[in-house]
Amino acid sequence: MKPSIPKGTRDFLPSEVYKRNFIFETIRSVFKKYGYQPIETPTMENLTTLTGKYGEEGDKLLFKVLNNDMFMEMAMAIDKLDKIGKEKVIIEMTSRGIPQAAAEGVLDLLNIETLPDLEKAFQNAPTGLKGIEELKEFHAYLDLTSTSNKIKFDISLARGLNYYTGCIFEVEADTEAYPNLRMGSIAGGGRYDNLTEVFGLSGVSGVGVSFGAERIYDVMEEEKLFPEGVEKDLDVLLIAFDDASHKYAFKAVQQLRDSNIIADLYPAPTKMKKQMKYANARQVPFVILIGSNEMESGVLTLKNMTTGEQFNLTIEAIIEKLFTR
Amino acid sequence: MKPSIPKGTRDFLPSEVYKRNFIFETIRSVFKKYGYQPIETPTMENLTTLTGKYGEEGDKLLFKVLNNDMFMEMAMAIDKLDKIGKEKVIIEMTSRGIPQAAAEGVLDLLNIETLPDLEKAFQNAPTGLKGIEELKEFHAYLDLTSTSNKIKFDISLARGLNYYTGCIFEVEADTEAYPNLRMGSIAGGGRYDNLTEVFGLSGVSGVGVSFGAERIYDVMEEEKLFPEGVEKDLDVLLIAFDDASHKYAFKAVQQLRDSNIIADLYPAPTKMKKQMKYANARQVPFVILIGSNEMESGVLTLKNMTTGEQFNLTIEAIIEKLFTR
Repeated sequence: MKPSIPKGTRDFLPSEVYKRNFIFETIRSVFKKYGYQPIETPTMENLTTLTGKYGEEGDKLLFKVLNNDMFMEMAMAIDKLDKIGKEKVIIEMTSRGIPQAAAEGVLDLLNIETLPDLEKAFQNAPTGLKGIEELKEFHAYLDLTSTSNKIKFDISLARGLNYYTGCIFEVEADTEAYPNLRMGSIAGGGRYDNLTEVFGLSGVSGVGVSFGAERIYDVMEEEKLFPEGVEKDLDVLLIAFDDASHKYAFKAVQQLRDSNIIADLYPAPTKMKKQMKYANARQVPFVILIGSNEMESGVLTLKNMTTGEQFNLTIEAIIEKLFTR
Repeated sequence: MKPSIPKGTRDFLPSEVYKRNFIFETIRSVFKKYGYQPIETPTMENLTTLTGKYGEEGDKLLFKVLNNDMFMEMAMAIDKLDKIGKEKVIIEMTSRGIPQAAAEGVLDLLNIETLPDLEKAFQNAPTGLKGIEELKEFHAYLDLTSTSNKIKFDISLARGLNYYTGCIFEVEADTEAYPNLRMGSIAGGGRYDNLTEVFGLSGVSGVGVSFGAERIYDVMEEEKLFPEGVEKDLDVLLIAFDDASHKYAFKAVQQLRDSNIIADLYPAPTKMKKQMKYANARQVPFVILIGSNEMESGVLTLKNMTTGEQFNLTIEAIIEKLFTR
């Protein structure tokens, strides 16, 4: 039998799990501080939910349910601006039934970079001016925040899923601080006022954001942003040389754990060389060596695996030393 | 469209998620202290892995691959002892080709409760005596532990999945401490030396344990073992009365969050009655009321929602108060 995992899934090994957990724990703690409540939903979706409503192709169906007008047709075409360029977007817009002049006019608007310029362009368009009022209100709140993120207004931003009814946003890694990054957006979302209506619950609005876990991981890895010790695994490994000292060490390893030191005992008193090889593979900073002499005297050998230094100490003194380093 | 989730999955609401996370976090922290490394694997399995090898019926196939002998036939029958009783187990064993006398002899052995008695019964059986030696060695290590769990030897224990090759174990909730509990096992596992061989990797032994998350949850809920505050949600809700004080409050809520207080601002300055109703629904211990007077003076109204007491304090004094309570 060939080992395999389901299509679309993958395994994560320890060093990845430590780093992924750091990312998720950071996100979770910020959400918690902001008073969000957690729910857990299945990681799978009914196929009908996705294909019938808002799968990659299905979003075409969804926006027809929600908002069957030309704005959505345009938004979907504009979403591709980065990828296919201005000319092809105009072709796509006209093929969706939007007049050539309107398509070009919209793309001209997308070159506008500030709210005042946009206000000028919309001076005869009451709906446009109302939108600008809302954006000003929104930015008035943003201006009150002390966030270290740089917030940039971008009228050309569009997103693939068209259930949004208000602001949309994307988060990009800070390419000023990290000029070598070419990562695109690492999170994105927006406001939707009618989404739950599709499932029979109307009048519940929301703002949602999804994080690109893999991209955040890659950015942090590339720029060495994970804190030191995030992969910290094992504080100390105990190595015993015979059956009697193995039992002695079994008791000692518990004393270490009771002091919240991450400790393990090599499972059998095999050859020292084999046990030290494992200690090196686990990159453990300290080992404790226990033979019959150590067992009788109660004075154990603590070895610093980085410097090679050895210390003869009782288990209590070792706990003191490992705890206060 | 009727909302639904995939068969076999469920949603967890906030109060459940808080408690489930408490359970998982406790398990995780203990494993970490013991030097275990985390991996993450897909929550789904290939159907062929399950049905071909060790699904509910498939385990019959698996033990034939691993160990095609009478012992496994017996173990599978014995596993049902609790459910179907002695007579029916003997009938099942004989139907699996085990002679009646042998079946009865095995069930007699299962009445033995101590290792010395078992040793007597096995005095002419070298394999049995070797097994007892191994059990003694195992218990010699267990005797060195300071665990508060009561460890009970039970020769009649058997488990449904037959890839185990050594000790098996089950964990039961402490019915002495909690006499009303009738929960059965809340965790179980054992040693398997050959399991990975099925997937092409031989010589890797392991000891595995699986936890019954739902059962642990039920035990803890029933006996009120979750620590106080596990569902703690929101330290304080800010309530503003008009647009200007809402912006003022938006800044104040950030100051609270910067001090690691879990704080939220009602999203709009609607009627006080509506906002207080929400505060009650969230069971928030404190609200901060901000109107034009409070905004101008910088002295806000802090209300203790339990006692009804009100305090007039600056935001800095509130942070001091909420932090040091």
